Amino acid sequence: MILKSQVEWALHCCAILAGLPEGRYLSTKALAEFHGLPKEYLSKALQSLSQAKLVESTLGPSGGYRLARPTAEITFLDVVEAVEGKERTFACSNIRANNPCRPEGYCEAGPCAVARVMWDADEAWRAKLRSVSLAALVQTLEQEIPTTLWQSSFQWVLKRAG
Amino acid sequence: MILKSQVEWALHCCAILAGLPEGRYLSTKALAEFHGLPKEYLSKALQSLSQAKLVESTLGPSGGYRLARPTAEITFLDVVEAVEGKERTFACSNIRANNPCRPEGYCEAGPCAVARVMWDADEAWRAKLRSVSLAALVQTLEQEIPTTLWQSSFQWVLKRAG
Ligand code: FES
Ligand code: FES
Repeated sequence: MILKSQVEWALHCCAILAGLPEGRYLSTKALAEFHGLPKEYLSKALQSLSQAKLVESTLGPSGGYRLARPTAEITFLDVVEAVEGKERTFACSNIRANNPCRPEGYCEAGPCAVARVMWDADEAWRAKLRSVSLAALVQTLEQEIPTTLWQSSFQWVLKRAG
Repeated sequence: MILKSQVEWALHCCAILAGLPEGRYLSTKALAEFHGLPKEYLSKALQSLSQAKLVESTLGPSGGYRLARPTAEITFLDVVEAVEGKERTFACSNIRANNPCRPEGYCEAGPCAVARVMWDADEAWRAKLRSVSLAALVQTLEQEIPTTLWQSSFQWVLKRAG
């Protein structure tokens, strides 16, 4: 069970969009170039973000994407779910119902103990992803990325932002 | 990102094998019949458990599978990893290295902040799965499944165990 590569792309795109000044947009082309990705592949990930209402887009020559909410209000979970969907990572097909000893018409009162553990684990994963916002990510990146690289990256982005 | 159906099957098979008396084995056929699954599909899941050394098999007419370790020493994580592999659910392709502003020869000191959050979440998921043993699962099932169904299921299994 491995997440799509698009999750990495989408999170990195959000980190870049998080640094755009109010009212500016960045094109798929610029985001793809910055991350060394084919524009066609990346546009799918950006569309997922757009469908989940995490980013807004404008059309036209200076069009592109910007975040639709403040960075403190977008979490890793929002981005992961935008790409991967919101379904739980464990699907129970209720195989316990196939037990040949089960009385006719018998129906379990609640979900299976096996499924409950799997769903608790899923929720632990989501809780961690929910606990980190884009704002927190950008703060960490700013601390860790050398100042010159951080600044030149922003200049690169601003030069291309609509 | 959804786990294979085999995870559900493997966990339920382990719960059944957990109830086998010392020295007894249960065939793929019986396990498949009990769970209403095609034998050919289930045998793949059982082979995964065998490769991970969670179950042992014997050949011959009374052959089959039994747990290779005490139930307190097999966790949900062991079973999930037997089926799904041990790789982390997030793979970082280091796309940050494509940043066009990155100085020639520059190399980051550690893993990307994005990847670290994703790996922390993966670890939270694994920690939860690691915290529940087959022994604990069987105890819960025994409490929740009506006594008559629990007992008739065991009789069904013992009649078929080698
Ligand atoms: S019946 Fe689905 S996990 Fe038990
Ligand atoms: S470079 Fe892979 S997650 Fe950041």
